[in-house]
Amino acid sequence: MAVKMTGAEMEALLVREYPQVAGDFKVESVSETRLVLRMKVNNSHLRPGGTVSGPSMFTLVDLAMYLATMALIGPKVLAVTTNCSIDFMRKPKLGDLLGEARVLKLGRQLAVGDVVIYSERMDKPVARASLTYSIPRET
Amino acid sequence: MAVKMTGAEMEALLVREYPQVAGDFKVESVSETRLVLRMKVNNSHLRPGGTVSGPSMFTLVDLAMYLATMALIGPKVLAVTTNCSIDFMRKPKLGDLLGEARVLKLGRQLAVGDVVIYSERMDKPVARASLTYSIPRET
Amino acid sequence: MAVKMTGAEMEALLVREYPQVAGDFKVESVSETRLVLRMKVNNSHLRPGGTVSGPSMFTLVDLAMYLATMALIGPKVLAVTTNCSIDFMRKPKLGDLLGEARVLKLGRQLAVGDVVIYSERMDKPVARASLTYSIPRET
Amino acid sequence: MAVKMTGAEMEALLVREYPQVAGDFKVESVSETRLVLRMKVNNSHLRPGGTVSGPSMFTLVDLAMYLATMALIGPKVLAVTTNCSIDFMRKPKLGDLLGEARVLKLGRQLAVGDVVIYSERMDKPVARASLTYSIPRET
Repeated sequence: MAVKMTGAEMEALLVREYPQVAGDFKVESVSETRLVLRMKVNNSHLRPGGTVSGPSMFTLVDLAMYLATMALIGPKVLAVTTNCSIDFMRKPKLGDLLGEARVLKLGRQLAVGDVVIYSERMDKPVARASLTYSIPRET
Repeated sequence: MAVKMTGAEMEALLVREYPQVAGDFKVESVSETRLVLRMKVNNSHLRPGGTVSGPSMFTLVDLAMYLATMALIGPKVLAVTTNCSIDFMRKPKLGDLLGEARVLKLGRQLAVGDVVIYSERMDKPVARASLTYSIPRET
Repeated sequence: MAVKMTGAEMEALLVREYPQVAGDFKVESVSETRLVLRMKVNNSHLRPGGTVSGPSMFTLVDLAMYLATMALIGPKVLAVTTNCSIDFMRKPKLGDLLGEARVLKLGRQLAVGDVVIYSERMDKPVARASLTYSIPRET
Repeated sequence: MAVKMTGAEMEALLVREYPQVAGDFKVESVSETRLVLRMKVNNSHLRPGGTVSGPSMFTLVDLAMYLATMALIGPKVLAVTTNCSIDFMRKPKLGDLLGEARVLKLGRQLAVGDVVIYSERMDKPVARASLTYSIPRET
């Protein structure tokens, strides 16, 4: 199965669908089995004390899983997250974050996968999440 | 056990700890068993099409559980979320959202609870989440 | 909306579908908004030291949510659990456990709800879980 | 960091701590980064129709993560599961199941990791789970 969207097409999709945050993200690599999404961390992502906020990390895992699914099925912009279980494991150092996503199941109605977040400046992972997306039927 | 913080004290805590988002939130009620936090939904919370974004709902459940825990133990600003499992169940109508939080376990190291999100304009719940906070030891 | 199955009908369903464990469970009460399922704890549920095992509590929350869904839609034996997130909060004392289930969303494809486990011999809850069931389409 | 227990030592630990189920499990391989646990599926794990039950798969992920943690810290039999979020993705074919566990965080109080379940007779994964264990302090 070939990938159905390039990184550039995905970034254009983010601009259309998530205009408020699209500028913060860059698709580093995409294949059938793995997508890496970079979050260019800036002040809007930080809490006092200089750590990346939980909602910012949620945004990263949500978009990484969304794009990893789009890579396999093409742009279905009506796909919606139905569940996310996220573990925050380590406080990231200041710097960009990378979300590595893989799709473990691609069914007709549901896609299930997981994402591990790494900091560019740390060896060990910062957070992990599993997500389920509901995929709309063709009309 | 009496509540250790009033709603006004909690809102002042949010201003100090979460200055970027504090203005969006209001503590509607607080007791030993239940805290209701209002998110005053504005354009910054919306996705194209007019629905509240997932990260905005994540912020609501995270802060609601945080404050429900602070109600029981007093202001421990170093408490951190270690896990959140959230189910997005219905697309909310435009309007404020209310997060109803309850703490189910308050241990020495961990607090566990859940939050149900309601829309002011819908009968049925929009989302539910369970969260675990790690509570720092006294120094 | 009236309940579509009585507790006795549910127990008969368990005997047919879950014969290995049906004898351990009793439907204490059922309404549109809440189902209580009793697990009659015996040696097969215990770990050395006398505490109820995690898999036994998983079985309780899974069956309680299953039956709470059946109460609303009637017996659809092909419904399957797609996700369960469970928090083990306190070690239960020896004695029966009660699972209180509520369905928060009943869609065409997915049912979402949660279950809180109580011990007959403790005030505070032992565990909590949220579950999603996939509901088969009519044929 | 060397592994602190061999597979044989882990199986002996299961016999002592989980005597009711120890005979169903075999440690296939163990390293610092990955542990594979085999569940020898028999009739006691099956539901009518011949599929492996949810509680049996819960047992597999719970023990795989437990042993993967013990590999890193040595036998701490009082470690307890505090959270498990499991996604059931595909109905397994009849045959043994393999749980591949990795520990993503090993803190002083909490260990966090995930487990993917494979069937010997299928290419794609059957289930995935993330788990948190609470690690007792030394006395």
